[in-house]
This record gives sequence, structure tokens and C-alpha cells, in this order.
Amino acid sequence: MITPGSRIGILGGGQLGRMMAIAARRLGYGVIGLDPDPACPLAAVADEMVVAAYGEAAAVAHLAARVAVLTVEFENVPAESLAAAQGRTRLAPGPQVLHAARHRLREKDLARHAGLTTTAYAAIHGPEDLDAALAVTGLPAILKTCELGYDGKGQRLLRSRDEAHAALSVLRPLPLIAEAVVPFRAECSVIIHRSPSGACAIHPVFENRHHRHILDVTLVPAALASATVAAAETGIRALAAALDLHGTLCAEFFVVGSGADERLVFNEMAPRPHNSGHVTIDASRCCQFENHIRAITDLPLGDTSLLLGGGAMVNLLGEVWASGEPDWANALTNAAIKVHLYGKGEPRSGRKMGHLNLAAADPAEAAKRLIAAREALRASP
Amino acid sequence: MITPGSRIGILGGGQLGRMMAIAARRLGYGVIGLDPDPACPLAAVADEMVVAAYGEAAAVAHLAARVAVLTVEFENVPAESLAAAQGRTRLAPGPQVLHAARHRLREKDLARHAGLTTTAYAAIHGPEDLDAALAVTGLPAILKTCELGYDGKGQRLLRSRDEAHAALSVLRPLPLIAEAVVPFRAECSVIIHRSPSGACAIHPVFENRHHRHILDVTLVPAALASATVAAAETGIRALAAALDLHGTLCAEFFVVGSGADERLVFNEMAPRPHNSGHVTIDASRCCQFENHIRAITDLPLGDTSLLLGGGAMVNLLGEVWASGEPDWANALTNAAIKVHLYGKGEPRSGRKMGHLNLAAADPAEAAKRLIAAREALRASP
Repeated sequence: MITPGSRIGILGGGQLGRMMAIAARRLGYGVIGLDPDPACPLAAVADEMVVAAYGEAAAVAHLAARVAVLTVEFENVPAESLAAAQGRTRLAPGPQVLHAARHRLREKDLARHAGLTTTAYAAIHGPEDLDAALAVTGLPAILKTCELGYDGKGQRLLRSRDEAHAALSVLRPLPLIAEAVVPFRAECSVIIHRSPSGACAIHPVFENRHHRHILDVTLVPAALASATVAAAETGIRALAAALDLHGTLCAEFFVVGSGADERLVFNEMAPRPHNSGHVTIDASRCCQFENHIRAITDLPLGDTSLLLGGGAMVNLLGEVWASGEPDWANALTNAAIKVHLYGKGEPRSGRKMGHLNLAAADPAEAAKRLIAAREALRASP
Repeated sequence: MITPGSRIGILGGGQLGRMMAIAARRLGYGVIGLDPDPACPLAAVADEMVVAAYGEAAAVAHLAARVAVLTVEFENVPAESLAAAQGRTRLAPGPQVLHAARHRLREKDLARHAGLTTTAYAAIHGPEDLDAALAVTGLPAILKTCELGYDGKGQRLLRSRDEAHAALSVLRPLPLIAEAVVPFRAECSVIIHRSPSGACAIHPVFENRHHRHILDVTLVPAALASATVAAAETGIRALAAALDLHGTLCAEFFVVGSGADERLVFNEMAPRPHNSGHVTIDASRCCQFENHIRAITDLPLGDTSLLLGGGAMVNLLGEVWASGEPDWANALTNAAIKVHLYGKGEPRSGRKMGHLNLAAADPAEAAKRLIAAREALRASP
């Protein structure tokens, strides 16, 4: 166990790093972060920041040498940086987890081997692979880069072989992955925390609604059959065990069919707290950030049950600031709504600036109220 | 309204300042603290610390000039420092609140004028006042200094006139206050937040158990008749209005009698978040620290209702560390228990190092579990 009072290192200084650090603080841990931006959201709550690019192996090694455990807020850490940290501190998650999670082909292969249903997919190393791949996926399909894609970046919808050839000449680096388009009726995510001892805690399943490829609204628990929830839990447990995960893993699924035909199709995963879990800060006994810290330090994991039986979250993107300072007084007339802001300076369009949470027995009703509150924010005072 | 993104100043860098700052961070505010100790608990979560004594008026003025509002984590701020801050920023609470709250005679007079029942008390400016004072209080009585007393410091129990004379020659400065000993059956506290607009939010009443004059266990809600709770709320509202409070006020009461004879006797107050309110971090929708920040910035106040209907808290003093690192794994086998540590270096005897919280419908049962968990902490692994 890494006892409270020890120092935790965090690679990446965005809102996830910041909320991890706040949880670490409350448990009495010290925090040193690494981020190229000295004014990143994490900086405000860290003891100290190493200001460096994630690829500066020497800086990562320097950080690693000063902390009891090193964790990450994103999966795209260059392999050389991880190699530089290894041997100097514990990595949680370990490099094998990041290796799998940052690459769409590897994560899909892993999920399939762990017994999960995935979308039909195929690797494309060059134009010669295209026809075989489209035979697997059918059309329409989606062509994606294997690395560095997020929030809809690095992907193209293919409605024809011509579009496929065009996309193939644009998306880089190779290999790419072609995926079948799944006619889903909903999207959901499952978040698990796993300790070095193998102990696990799983949050109730989240239902996620996206807008322009960015998470917009989360409801918890997702309205799913109990057999579907059980399958999701079995799947994420198998995935976490296969990865020998120390920390947090979020898997995103498509919900296909309904009633007795309802099933989940694995889409992708992230080896860290996830935007869909932000609702747990106010809706759950022990939120995803505190449980992440408990998992990487090997403290016993906290209870993931929902205090009021449910809740919802809406993201606040930079657009909310488009016509000036949001009208906080107007938006917060419902005293039960909680605001979380990440301390980012510039409210650029599409930038995640904060979120609103509401714990409630009826997640759909909570989501409605949050959406109304977000609308009220835009009405300048 | 002071909008998120603005800077809040906090005088005092202990655990109260730290937990205020964490709440401020989550709402997107910047934080600058002032404390003589550069390694104080607040320093870890502040943007910046002014390292100075509270009495250094120039340092306080410098801080005040850089923040949108200045708040305090304790009431004993020298008047010259407050004067130096005034005109440079908003003070919340205002100097009139601190002036009343840091002086036992003034706070009792104020409570009485606000319509609250207080203990029988009398001012003692010298030996010539003693007999008249004891005629008011009876014996046994308690003799206290008017300023700078806390956690049982600066007071003596008087069982006889001889003891009264002896105590009077020791306790300084004059005047002192003599108070009747109240045969209470329980102690409780009430916490109110009040905005510059006059809006108020009151937490459910806390029941407090002390050990060696230091808060040991809090249960919420206190087991009181509804008429008693209503009287407590009316009383604290009147007190906050009389003070024109901007911020948080905690009033401590003795519970006397039971059934139809149950009533509350005002003991003392503190114009800030209070140890008895720490349970609200996990048991309430919006905790005392977030509501303090909302009150001083004039954001709408948050809902103070209890998520599961109740909860309990136990303090972790330095004694828990007496035989080495506490056994966290043993203590946290109940996954619902939450740990809060303040990041203090030296676990000295009597020093408040942290606390444990448990939200539960049955506060007595929750308190039992927390006391057992605290015992388990002492059993070294």
C-alpha cells in the first residue's frame, strides 16, 4: 500500500488530472504533475508541476523518481516516456494497459479475446486490404486511425468503395481500422477500478448521449435489462483482469436491440477516469476519481453505489461562454444542481470547461433539469 | 456576484481553509491564502500563499488588494489586519461579525438580543465583580477568558469562592466571563450560510460529543423534537441577520430537558465552517464548505438536505498515529466509510489530522461503525 502522505505523480494536467488530484488531496496525498502548459487545470491543485512535453523522457524520469506511483490522465503517452519511468516508480496503469488502450486494433483484439462482442472490424495496412476489410464490415463502415483519435477526430464515414479509397489516402498513419456501423439504439459506458490485489469496484452502467462526437449528457443508471448489466460487468471484469489493470478502465458500448434481444457491442476503452463518470462525484458514495486514487495506492476501494439511486451530468463546453459570462444565478435556482469548473482560461468552442451534476432517483428527469439549467446559463444576465 | 474564475483570499491556512479552497477550486475560483506556515494544509491547494503572521497588516492589505473577496478560517484576526483589508476588497464575513464572535461577552449579549436563551453569565473586570457574578451564575460555574479560548483552553471550573479567586488571579486578560454550568443532556450545533442578498441555507442540526474538550463524534440529524429544531433555526436566522452575516455561522447549544421540556441554551458561535459540519462533505447534497464559497461569492446557495437522511463523523487526532502508520486497510473494510486527511506533517497529540465520514439513515449506527473503524486504524498492520 502507498500510504496517505506519499506523493502521486500525474502525467497530463487537464480536467481529469485535476479531479484526480483533488481526490488525492482529500485522502492526504501529495501530487506532482507533468504537463507542457504551466497554467493547466491540474497546476492549481498540485504541489508542483514539471513543465515538459509528454515525450520528454528525461522529464518523465525525473518526475517518476520523486513519486510513489505514477498515473496518467490519457493513454497516448509515448512509449519512450513510459520506459523512462519504469524502474523508477510504480506505473498505474502499467505500460501494457496503455499499449493496448491507445491502439484501436489492439483494444478490439483484446476485448474479443476477453469474451466481449465487438463491432465487426478489420485492419487495413494499405489499399490492397480494403476489399477484404469491407467484406468483413459491410457498408456503410467507419475508417479510423488506430492511434490518437478522440472525440470523433481521425475518422471518416464510408458509404461507398470510392469514399473508402479517398479516406484511405488521407488518414494516417497506417494501419487503419475499418469498423462496421452498428445500428445502436443507445450508447453506454462501464467504469471499473482494480487494485494491485485484484479487488474490483464497478460503477452502475452510464448511458451517454453525444453531440458532434463529444459527450453531451450522461444518465445513470442506464435503462438496461439486468442481464445486460450483468454481461457488461462480466465483460469489464474480464477485460481488467486480462490487462492486469491497476487503476481505472472505462469501456464504451453500443446498445443494440431491446427486450430479450438487448445486447452490448464493445466500441472502445480508456484506461483512466472518463467523462461519463463525472456524475459519480455527486451521485455516488465514492466517485471515480477517489476510487482511481484508492486503486493505484492499493487502499480498499470505495462503495460505488448511487446515493439517491441515480443521477445525470451535462458537459459545459466553451459555447456556453459565447455571449459572455454565463448567468450562474439563473442556472442555479435549483439548489440541488452542482457546478464543476476546471479553471481553464479560454472558453474556446468545443473545449470542455466544466459540467453540471444532479443526483436524483429519476435520471431522465435529472437530465432534463440539467439541460434546462445549461440553457439558462447561456441567457446572459 | 463574484463570478467563477475570480480569486478568493483566505486568512488562515489550517484544515478549514484547505477544505474551503477545495470547494472553491471545484467551482472554478482561484485561491490565495495567508498563513505564517508555508507548509500549512491550505498551501497545497492554493494558487499562492502569502507567508505572514495574521497581525502583519501590510501583508493582509497586499493579499486583500489581489482578491475579489477575503474570508477567514478563524475569528481571531487582529482588528488592525481587518482595517488594512477594508476598502481593498470585500470582507466576508465583515469585521462586525468577527468583532462579535471573537469575544465571549459580546457574542452572548448578541445572542440574547437576538432572542436566544443563553447560559446565565456575568462580566468580571476584577475581584470586586466576583460575588455579584457568582450570584448570577451560582456554583459550580466556569470562568473563561473572553478572547482566544478554544477547545477548552483559557477556562477553569469553579466549585467554590476560593477556586474562583484563584482562577481570577491566573486567567488573563481581563475582563473574564463567568458562566453557569448547564446540566445538559447533549450538545448540538447549527450551521447557517447567508448571502449578501440575505438568502439563507441551514443544515440539519448536528449532535456533538466531545472528548477532553475537543469534538470527537458528530451525528446528524440530532435526535431533537421538531419544535426544538424549529427554535434552533429561528434563533440562528435571527443571529445571522443581526450580524448582517455574509458567509457561514455555527452556533453551539446545550440541549436541556427532554420531551415537552426540551430546549436549547446558546453556548458560543464561530463565524465560519465548523468541525461539526465536516460530515456534510459526504452526507449532504451541498456541504458547508461549498455553501460557504457560494455565500461569500453570492452564488445561489446549495441544497443542505441529507442524501441518505443522516450521517456521522469522527475526528482523527494525532493519537491515531501514536504507534505508527494507521492500518488503513483494516479500517476501510467498510467501503462506505470516507477518509479525509489534512496533509499535516507531524501527528502531535490532540492535533486534528483528519476525519472519517459515513452517510447513513441511522446516525447512531453510523457513529458506531466509525468509532470501530477508528479503533481499527490504531491496530498497526
